[in-house]
Amino acid sequence: MSAAKKKRTPDENSGKYHKDTFDKISDKKRERIIKISTIEFAEKGFNGANVNVIANKAGISIGSMYNYFSSKEHLFLTIVDEGYKLLEEAFAGADLSNGDIYGKLETIIRVAQKHSRSHPHFVQLYQDITTESLAHLSARLSRKIENISAVFYRHYLNEAKEQGLVDPSIDEHVASFCIDNIIVLMQFSYTSEYYKERLRTFIGEDALEDDDRVIRGMMDFIRHAIGVRK
Amino acid sequence: MSAAKKKRTPDENSGKYHKDTFDKISDKKRERIIKISTIEFAEKGFNGANVNVIANKAGISIGSMYNYFSSKEHLFLTIVDEGYKLLEEAFAGADLSNGDIYGKLETIIRVAQKHSRSHPHFVQLYQDITTESLAHLSARLSRKIENISAVFYRHYLNEAKEQGLVDPSIDEHVASFCIDNIIVLMQFSYTSEYYKERLRTFIGEDALEDDDRVIRGMMDFIRHAIGVRK
Repeated sequence: MSAAKKKRTPDENSGKYHKDTFDKISDKKRERIIKISTIEFAEKGFNGANVNVIANKAGISIGSMYNYFSSKEHLFLTIVDEGYKLLEEAFAGADLSNGDIYGKLETIIRVAQKHSRSHPHFVQLYQDITTESLAHLSARLSRKIENISAVFYRHYLNEAKEQGLVDPSIDEHVASFCIDNIIVLMQFSYTSEYYKERLRTFIGEDALEDDDRVIRGMMDFIRHAIGVRK
Repeated sequence: MSAAKKKRTPDENSGKYHKDTFDKISDKKRERIIKISTIEFAEKGFNGANVNVIANKAGISIGSMYNYFSSKEHLFLTIVDEGYKLLEEAFAGADLSNGDIYGKLETIIRVAQKHSRSHPHFVQLYQDITTESLAHLSARLSRKIENISAVFYRHYLNEAKEQGLVDPSIDEHVASFCIDNIIVLMQFSYTSEYYKERLRTFIGEDALEDDDRVIRGMMDFIRHAIGVRK
């Protein structure tokens, strides 16, 4: 769609990327458009996805699509927001109030693993955002999406240092980065053919069917990486 | 280009994805085509890249491009092979014969960091391969690219267990996966706008200028994750 509209940042105004008309259609129709768009963007990437194909599959005219979204980019950003909401819901549903830092980290890993399996298309979409072909959107999205995890890890690592559960000498910034690297590539390992094959190459042919082994090994690794040193 | 040719796997025959005609042109011309293709694929992704644009920028006709490569996919795979060769060269130039496992891991991390900074386009290309939009190529490429690292880590972790440098209780398969996850996302952190911003979000605004802090923190994390437990 229009390249001239690429620079608009509607989130700074209305906080949404779609036009008001999209709010006025039936829930069923809105959900259908979102579902079909999600699959198209996830499977083909932003550059490979085609708005005409989406309109066609959703059974609406391309004119209607323009009435709901001013550009392919705004449609994409609407879908990204939907995925972001789903991830927030997954973590809101997890009980992170109890347990020490290791219990919390294991809960996060289990929720992340389950979320990848339940919503592969949104994880595929996330992976696409991180590539250089979407560099013009990346900085803003990265800060928004990553800041939550970064602040979360740092907070709990510092709290655990005070509790004597994490070694006082560790650099909690780099440690958070390492922990998140481990978890992010685990998430991709359930949703991209490339990373599925990589998981099998590293851990074994049945790695995709042995979630507990992966979690146990990761927790063992992380626990000793940051635990108090004798 | 021709979709009918997508299923061909020329590497099983000649071991290359380009036609013989591409070997016969001057080194200068061949290098120009590779360089321009690399940048186009890296910046726009496989789906966004355009062979006409590449031919145009390289100053050759689209007919000549067809004489060298039977499809966009074969051109892409030729470029991927070039990137793979560069990575092999980078590691062949590193001295991994001396030092214990921690010395070797630090060398690997330093080589990987330097390689990302020197050849960002090839790392961007690699990142594109891992997305679901290239699923039809992924399994084969993943096994080829990842098997070398997987075997390497496992070998040295087992050797270090025997030397009493790595804890005998660790699952060397999952530990290799964790170590590689940390390193792969570090590599992306120097080559994709999304991951650059993520590195700054996790480690600090000057993280991209403080390579030693990143390496020190990562090595500290890994050393304690796999080291002998008292």
